[in-house]
Amino acid sequence: MSLIAEQLEARAKAFPGSVIDSSTALLASQTHDIVRFAMGAPGGDLIPQQELDACFQQGDESRYGYGATEGEPELIDEIVALSSRFGGETSAERILITTGAMQGLDLAFKLLINSGDLVIVEGPTYTNGNSTALSYGADLLEAPVDGDGMVVERLPELVAETGKTPRAIYVIPTFQNPSGTTLSAERRQRLLELAEEWDCWIIEDDPYGLLGFDGQHVPSLAELSPGNPRIFGVRTLSKIIAPGLRVGWIDVDPKIRELAIAAKQAMDTCSSVPIQQAVARFLQSGALTGHLERLRGIYRERRDAMRDAVTEIIGDDARTTHPEGGMFLWVTLEGRYSDIDTEAMFERALKNGVAYIPGPAFSANGRYRNQLRVCFATSTPERIREGIRRLRTTLDEELA
Amino acid sequence: MSLIAEQLEARAKAFPGSVIDSSTALLASQTHDIVRFAMGAPGGDLIPQQELDACFQQGDESRYGYGATEGEPELIDEIVALSSRFGGETSAERILITTGAMQGLDLAFKLLINSGDLVIVEGPTYTNGNSTALSYGADLLEAPVDGDGMVVERLPELVAETGKTPRAIYVIPTFQNPSGTTLSAERRQRLLELAEEWDCWIIEDDPYGLLGFDGQHVPSLAELSPGNPRIFGVRTLSKIIAPGLRVGWIDVDPKIRELAIAAKQAMDTCSSVPIQQAVARFLQSGALTGHLERLRGIYRERRDAMRDAVTEIIGDDARTTHPEGGMFLWVTLEGRYSDIDTEAMFERALKNGVAYIPGPAFSANGRYRNQLRVCFATSTPERIREGIRRLRTTLDEELA
Repeated sequence: MSLIAEQLEARAKAFPGSVIDSSTALLASQTHDIVRFAMGAPGGDLIPQQELDACFQQGDESRYGYGATEGEPELIDEIVALSSRFGGETSAERILITTGAMQGLDLAFKLLINSGDLVIVEGPTYTNGNSTALSYGADLLEAPVDGDGMVVERLPELVAETGKTPRAIYVIPTFQNPSGTTLSAERRQRLLELAEEWDCWIIEDDPYGLLGFDGQHVPSLAELSPGNPRIFGVRTLSKIIAPGLRVGWIDVDPKIRELAIAAKQAMDTCSSVPIQQAVARFLQSGALTGHLERLRGIYRERRDAMRDAVTEIIGDDARTTHPEGGMFLWVTLEGRYSDIDTEAMFERALKNGVAYIPGPAFSANGRYRNQLRVCFATSTPERIREGIRRLRTTLDEELA
Repeated sequence: MSLIAEQLEARAKAFPGSVIDSSTALLASQTHDIVRFAMGAPGGDLIPQQELDACFQQGDESRYGYGATEGEPELIDEIVALSSRFGGETSAERILITTGAMQGLDLAFKLLINSGDLVIVEGPTYTNGNSTALSYGADLLEAPVDGDGMVVERLPELVAETGKTPRAIYVIPTFQNPSGTTLSAERRQRLLELAEEWDCWIIEDDPYGLLGFDGQHVPSLAELSPGNPRIFGVRTLSKIIAPGLRVGWIDVDPKIRELAIAAKQAMDTCSSVPIQQAVARFLQSGALTGHLERLRGIYRERRDAMRDAVTEIIGDDARTTHPEGGMFLWVTLEGRYSDIDTEAMFERALKNGVAYIPGPAFSANGRYRNQLRVCFATSTPERIREGIRRLRTTLDEELA
């Protein structure tokens, strides 16, 4: 039917979808045993299920009615308290509760950019960040990432080549997805300066900042430049409580928040009210502090287990990053594996019982074919070793 | 700060927000007694709270992890069964679960229209439908509505005046919001023909179809034209179970659904999983059938109570529609009240303890100044009479 065919063609580029999200449905449809390194999700054993269940059993009738678009007041209060406790002073009139951080990114690009605008992103970066930017017509500039995060000092030269002035910089500065790297203090300062120079927005996506393995605090861009109206902060509870809840927030200039409320009214009216109230009660209980400590210790152990497994089982022909927080290792295939296409290999890996995210998912230009992302947060050390063994088998089968 | 000022100015028109949604936060912030005719929401006494609470207490650990973007499989199965039971045969590959019907509308306009496209809407129509269309740059044509719904036979003439071909028709054919009217069978047929002629989309928003007071079944456009790929169906459980859950769905051609999945991945990844699983259990229990029967009887009683109250308390200078289902009366001020501006009057009404939605909220062009929407579903007959008394007081104070 011509109308549909035409529309599919016109929209396919604007909505590339997400290999990461699609993997959830794909994995759910498999019946054989699979070690899950694909989604960036806490393991089922690390989700405070009993505490959350108890929170759902409380609450009054108001939770089944419409809620305020900006979020339930008691949840906003808890988010303000949480932010302040961990170094990021904020206030209620800067916070809007979102349906996961993903909606925060959707709001950011919807409100801040116009079709054709230049947006700087990290290369590699979070798939869905790119997807959302593209859905609003962004022209993406992929800036390289090294061990200290985005190579900010190269930005002026890269931007000059485009002949445009950037409209926004999308950055995951702390324990980055997928590379696990953290933007250095010097580069954070320089990035803030460049944003002034270009009079552009900074979309600071920080899902992992509280997951430093040594409990270390890395000041966010918003903390380094308090009240800076050009910083659009995107946050989430997905990585520290549970992703299925879909509770995130934005921390923005109050005037931008007013605009975001109006935009969200045309997106989903409000986020689920029973969920917001249950999460507010969980935070009120004070359980998060101990939970975070537990997570950090276990994630460090799992990072070590995965790095050790890669070294012992795959050896010199795979290089990994060494993240000090977060959930991911970024693996580069080298030597005899260097010609392997991780996207083409995925089907075989799945058959062999291991799932990961292929490198090209993290680039709007299909780069990083010999790289892949593995999440160490989901599996126990034993399962991690088993998954890496299956990965090694798959690599060797690709060569055969 | 210039960047923010510039952006606020550029986006204010695209994101007018929703007077309806804003009323939730506004009312929550009031401390005096208010009769609530504003939101289209079931009364707290009509929400199956105990049953829902029980559904939240079941479920396994999977509900706290990421879910498939298209929705939880068991909920999709229940939606297919529900649709089929009430006359709308469908299948799982046509269904995508949304964060309320609002996200269904967001998806519809995001996927189907381009900036500058002509979109036909009812005048008056649902505020947020207009808002979402405007957020994607739609050029809205408000078609008049009479006792038989949108005056479809006038569309060719009205469209010709614009010099454009419509890209989409946004219609709430059954127990329309805000007018309560239902599109006649003849006009439904003519609308389907016109969509063929114009090769355009029909966005069929049907939140109230199951709320016919006599249990009457009005065939939807999708039922009249089974499998028609140009019909984008938007549905919700907000009006028949509970709005705070934020569970809706779209029922669309499977190819469009694939596109919608990709788009939703860049919007909120998936809708809240614990909510979806709890709602699936509620539907599995079979409780909805009896609940709907109860709702219909009570809503009929409340419609009668409100119509009677308007006639007795306000008299000839207010005319109301006579809906046979749904939640709303549309009130036109006449005679000595005909010059009253319902938007200007709102603050006084709120002070006097009654909330409604002013007419201009239902027009992108600020029309319907002497009209207003009142929801009869939320309040008991006694409270409805009290609310109408307060409305009468307010009208007279406006004249004084």
